Amino acid sequence: MQPYAATAELPAHKASLDALYSLIRPDLARVDALILERVRSDVPLIADVARHIIASGGKRIRPALTLICAQLCGYRGDQHIALASAIEFIHTATLLHDDVVDESKLRRGIATANDLFGNKASVLVGDFLLSQAFQLMVADGSPKVLRILSDTSAIIAKGEVMQLMTEGAPETTTERYLEVIAAKTAALFAAACELGAVAGGNPAYEAPLYDFGMHIGTAFQLIDDVLDYNADQETLGKTIGDDFREGKITLPVILAYAAGNAEEKAFWQRSLGDLQQQPGDLAAAIRLMDKHQALAQSVALAGEYCERARRAIDGFPPSPAKTAMLDMVDFCAGRVY
Amino acid sequence: MQPYAATAELPAHKASLDALYSLIRPDLARVDALILERVRSDVPLIADVARHIIASGGKRIRPALTLICAQLCGYRGDQHIALASAIEFIHTATLLHDDVVDESKLRRGIATANDLFGNKASVLVGDFLLSQAFQLMVADGSPKVLRILSDTSAIIAKGEVMQLMTEGAPETTTERYLEVIAAKTAALFAAACELGAVAGGNPAYEAPLYDFGMHIGTAFQLIDDVLDYNADQETLGKTIGDDFREGKITLPVILAYAAGNAEEKAFWQRSLGDLQQQPGDLAAAIRLMDKHQALAQSVALAGEYCERARRAIDGFPPSPAKTAMLDMVDFCAGRVY
Repeated sequence: MQPYAATAELPAHKASLDALYSLIRPDLARVDALILERVRSDVPLIADVARHIIASGGKRIRPALTLICAQLCGYRGDQHIALASAIEFIHTATLLHDDVVDESKLRRGIATANDLFGNKASVLVGDFLLSQAFQLMVADGSPKVLRILSDTSAIIAKGEVMQLMTEGAPETTTERYLEVIAAKTAALFAAACELGAVAGGNPAYEAPLYDFGMHIGTAFQLIDDVLDYNADQETLGKTIGDDFREGKITLPVILAYAAGNAEEKAFWQRSLGDLQQQPGDLAAAIRLMDKHQALAQSVALAGEYCERARRAIDGFPPSPAKTAMLDMVDFCAGRVY
Repeated sequence: MQPYAATAELPAHKASLDALYSLIRPDLARVDALILERVRSDVPLIADVARHIIASGGKRIRPALTLICAQLCGYRGDQHIALASAIEFIHTATLLHDDVVDESKLRRGIATANDLFGNKASVLVGDFLLSQAFQLMVADGSPKVLRILSDTSAIIAKGEVMQLMTEGAPETTTERYLEVIAAKTAALFAAACELGAVAGGNPAYEAPLYDFGMHIGTAFQLIDDVLDYNADQETLGKTIGDDFREGKITLPVILAYAAGNAEEKAFWQRSLGDLQQQPGDLAAAIRLMDKHQALAQSVALAGEYCERARRAIDGFPPSPAKTAMLDMVDFCAGRVY
């Protein structure tokens, strides 16, 4: 595999999210408490699925962005706790709905990500989590908050449908892919950051923090898509190839397909276009990506978005929150090293 | 099959929805136009699925309730058009999500209701329709509207999950069943009616119209569940037995199971509990329902809810809108004759 460092910029130090999480630790604990309170239900399946998905939800990166952006804006109140929780509910609902698998794939025995509870429970509990987000935003009552979160939900839904339509189409363009991830991923990062500014109460901060979120969200998704083909991940105990098995068309595929010869294009068409996969196809896909530097180019593009994220918050005076956000950008840029 | 008329009250005349629809025709045309405008999308799959589900959505009974209730309250403005549209969006989103089928059933070859577009498109386009409902309610901006619609979404989601949990459990109680349909069906009817009152601007009308909606919605679902086992429907070209094939536990099943002997209980357990269905099972189920008057009792209960709906609007002075609503109740009560 190509060394990514050749095309992507190395962060100056080994970045981590430690500074970020230490600054927001008390706030994030309140977000967790609010989320758990809202998913406590007399319906056991709701409580079970919600607890499972929330427990396995990772780093709470999206609510963390709301909290740190509120802090960057000098906010001292309580509003950001509910807003950060609403963002996490929208995210977990999207995760559950994104895991729903089509009949055609099930018939071919393609593994489902939601085997534990089933398609239908994933959909319905996802709806419940979404309704919790809407109740939180209605309780907040700010017209700006309502507008941001309802618009963001519409954008995400549209982005998810757009992604579904690119499945099986390796000839998808880079522009289309960027449009899809802006909608399905980056828009929620942007809303998370913008809501921090809304809580902060200074409208001048909303646009730059929205931009920060769009750029870091785009970089985050680009890197995620690269990691799914990164064999080094396997040594970390993470699975790779999920996107490949599901026929998802991500930038590494798009770049390798576009640069490929007729025989290679036929390989992509068979394995991802028609989902007729054979043993060894994933390894072959990674070899083709290496040949055309598709992963390295994707990482380089992520690096560009990270740089845009840094520039978006240039105008903020130095503060621990700003340093933590810049660290976060470096961490994002450096996830594949 | 038992003649239902023996236990349910016959309406005095052949009721229809004609009066209702003729009163609201111009308003309903505006609702349709708004809905079609909101689902017009540059994403073809969204436009296709949305148009399909909306075109096949039947009588627009829920938005019709908002419109007629607004009229009952003497409302002359525009607010009810967007509210009725939001109600229909929530309904169509619920339809799409309710059609998602579990892996286990697909593996057994049980037909899917959303074969046309697939599980995943149904989920994601449903999310898009839901987001349209939320954008409409946010654009409306009334805190009461926001509270009603966000709470209703949460109640519906909970009701859908509760229904999922009753699947395969013919020992479910009547009380539990009524709780499920109150949440998954009647709550949206109630919200539809209450929003008509909110548009009308007289808070005193909200509670009686909410009650009207809860009762008519409950009756509506009870009758729907009966019709799924009504062989007369087949002569009208409608399919019966969908609920049976999917293992849905509805009141006719609950009553027949509760009244059944050990052998009959074993039949219900095998066919619905374990979904191990054999040819002739549906006919056998209908015979057992007839034996125990399970369908007639369900119709009688629907009749009681219809009576409660009538009483809920007793206090309104006579008006064409009130007459149309009473006709609607008669129509609902009479759907199985």
